[in-house]
Amino acid sequence: MRQAGRYLPEYQKVRRAAGSFLTMCRTPDLATEVTLQPVRRFDLDAAIVFSDILTPLVPLGIELDFTPAPHIGNPIRHVDDLGRLRPPRPWSGTEFLGETLERVRAALEPSVALIGFCGAPWTLASYLVEGTTSRSFTRAKAFALNHPDQFDRLLALLADCMADYLRDQVAHGAQAVQVFDSWVGTLGAEDARRWALGPARRLLSQLDDLGVPRIYFAHGGTHLLHDMHDMPCEVIGLDWRADLGRAPRILPGHALQGNLDPGVLMGPLEEIARRTLAMLELAPRTGYIANLGHGITPEVPVAAMETFARTVQGYRYR
Amino acid sequence: MRQAGRYLPEYQKVRRAAGSFLTMCRTPDLATEVTLQPVRRFDLDAAIVFSDILTPLVPLGIELDFTPAPHIGNPIRHVDDLGRLRPPRPWSGTEFLGETLERVRAALEPSVALIGFCGAPWTLASYLVEGTTSRSFTRAKAFALNHPDQFDRLLALLADCMADYLRDQVAHGAQAVQVFDSWVGTLGAEDARRWALGPARRLLSQLDDLGVPRIYFAHGGTHLLHDMHDMPCEVIGLDWRADLGRAPRILPGHALQGNLDPGVLMGPLEEIARRTLAMLELAPRTGYIANLGHGITPEVPVAAMETFARTVQGYRYR
Repeated sequence: MRQAGRYLPEYQKVRRAAGSFLTMCRTPDLATEVTLQPVRRFDLDAAIVFSDILTPLVPLGIELDFTPAPHIGNPIRHVDDLGRLRPPRPWSGTEFLGETLERVRAALEPSVALIGFCGAPWTLASYLVEGTTSRSFTRAKAFALNHPDQFDRLLALLADCMADYLRDQVAHGAQAVQVFDSWVGTLGAEDARRWALGPARRLLSQLDDLGVPRIYFAHGGTHLLHDMHDMPCEVIGLDWRADLGRAPRILPGHALQGNLDPGVLMGPLEEIARRTLAMLELAPRTGYIANLGHGITPEVPVAAMETFARTVQGYRYR
Repeated sequence: MRQAGRYLPEYQKVRRAAGSFLTMCRTPDLATEVTLQPVRRFDLDAAIVFSDILTPLVPLGIELDFTPAPHIGNPIRHVDDLGRLRPPRPWSGTEFLGETLERVRAALEPSVALIGFCGAPWTLASYLVEGTTSRSFTRAKAFALNHPDQFDRLLALLADCMADYLRDQVAHGAQAVQVFDSWVGTLGAEDARRWALGPARRLLSQLDDLGVPRIYFAHGGTHLLHDMHDMPCEVIGLDWRADLGRAPRILPGHALQGNLDPGVLMGPLEEIARRTLAMLELAPRTGYIANLGHGITPEVPVAAMETFARTVQGYRYR
């Protein structure tokens, strides 16, 4: 999960100096600094590069801004709008991220892994159609239902672009990749299979030869766990709604990542430690990455994240 | 699910004349009219009274407005704020709803059932703390984690008030009651059991003697279905993420209601019919109420809702 962010005072300082969130993403100096901040503070086993799932849409011709919610100036509202998308092949337009990855890799201890990431096709497509975040994704579903073949092609285009984009990240130093399907939770199983899991499979399977661990994180996707048993990835990321005790039986071929509710980080430190220990007790003994079940919210006290990290680091299996 | 609303031109007309959403809820003439509109149009088996889950918080001392999102002027941010809540016993302060129910009941054919409703304790408590809708419910979780005993008491207070409120609705003509747990989906299982399902159980069990069917609808609660097997209610409402084919095995003691994705109503009419038929084929043969899996969004064409209703009404088991 995203480790850097507004809950860290040192992040706030860089953020203020940068002026805008996008500037911070696109300036390797600044993105490197905020990527490293949580690793320095919490002695984490891995760093996830600072970026946003929407930045790689800009090379496709998308106008992107954060106000602070993401806002797309030229959303895909009609079938004709699809012609505007110009996927760069070979992949280009995110050189800033390649440079950030190289700098972060050079700065990290060899034992600390560097994770690259991208958004999953359904999540990106729904942003493209809605133009911003949504509650019901009415526009995205309307597009998909009324123009199913064109929507499938959009998803395939995004899958192929994101595969190229992750490949580029690995070439610049990413040692694992995570695919965020942030909005898959808005879909029932039939739609999720066609619009989310299938396209994510297309994306992930293109990275078979890279030899880096692939993580698929389906936020709100507890109802889809059975459908993920054959995802071409090494790790499934679980949010806090998933039953970490039952998940290994549903996904025997995958390592698991997760899944503490980041909302728990708003509680007393002893409660955070208790919940973290309960999670670790429930987790499988092998093939498990301790993590939060979603990103950290801005209100979380630093001491809360520190308690989470220290509890995981101090835990020994009995 | 709410049947009336912004997708109906006749509703829009009443809404414009009323000036505000709250005025419409509180004026029996207008609330009666918009309750009856979808029944007239679609020949439904039941009417659900037009209201909002937050209106019964006003008699407790809460300042409520819709802009159009719900906004609470005096949210519960500190433990001391809890003292401001003054639950009326016996229940009073929603006489407008009683009058609406009586008028609707008088206007409906005897064969058409009238449903009353309320919000579940967790959903109401999180509105009270957050002050409006939220994505992460950070404030509500922070309150619950840091003041667990006081939060439990708040949930108990809301459960008891809402039991009185539903009892009052039944006294005025409601023949079934639905409890909406709109935000339970933001909770992991441990928290849901303590903060949502337990308090909902407290509410529902107080209505044992009324002899009316009770429906518990846990939006986003697919991960909690096993925990609902002993809910003191006759019907469990499912959203579109739940597997309608598997749910009867998980909830053998309950009738089921649901669960078409309202987003499907944005698709072509033949696709709506196909999806509706697929739902009906999957549903149990007895103890089943065909419905949407959530409320209708404003963009839905009337013809879409009509196709849904006609497909259900025309269906015969083979």
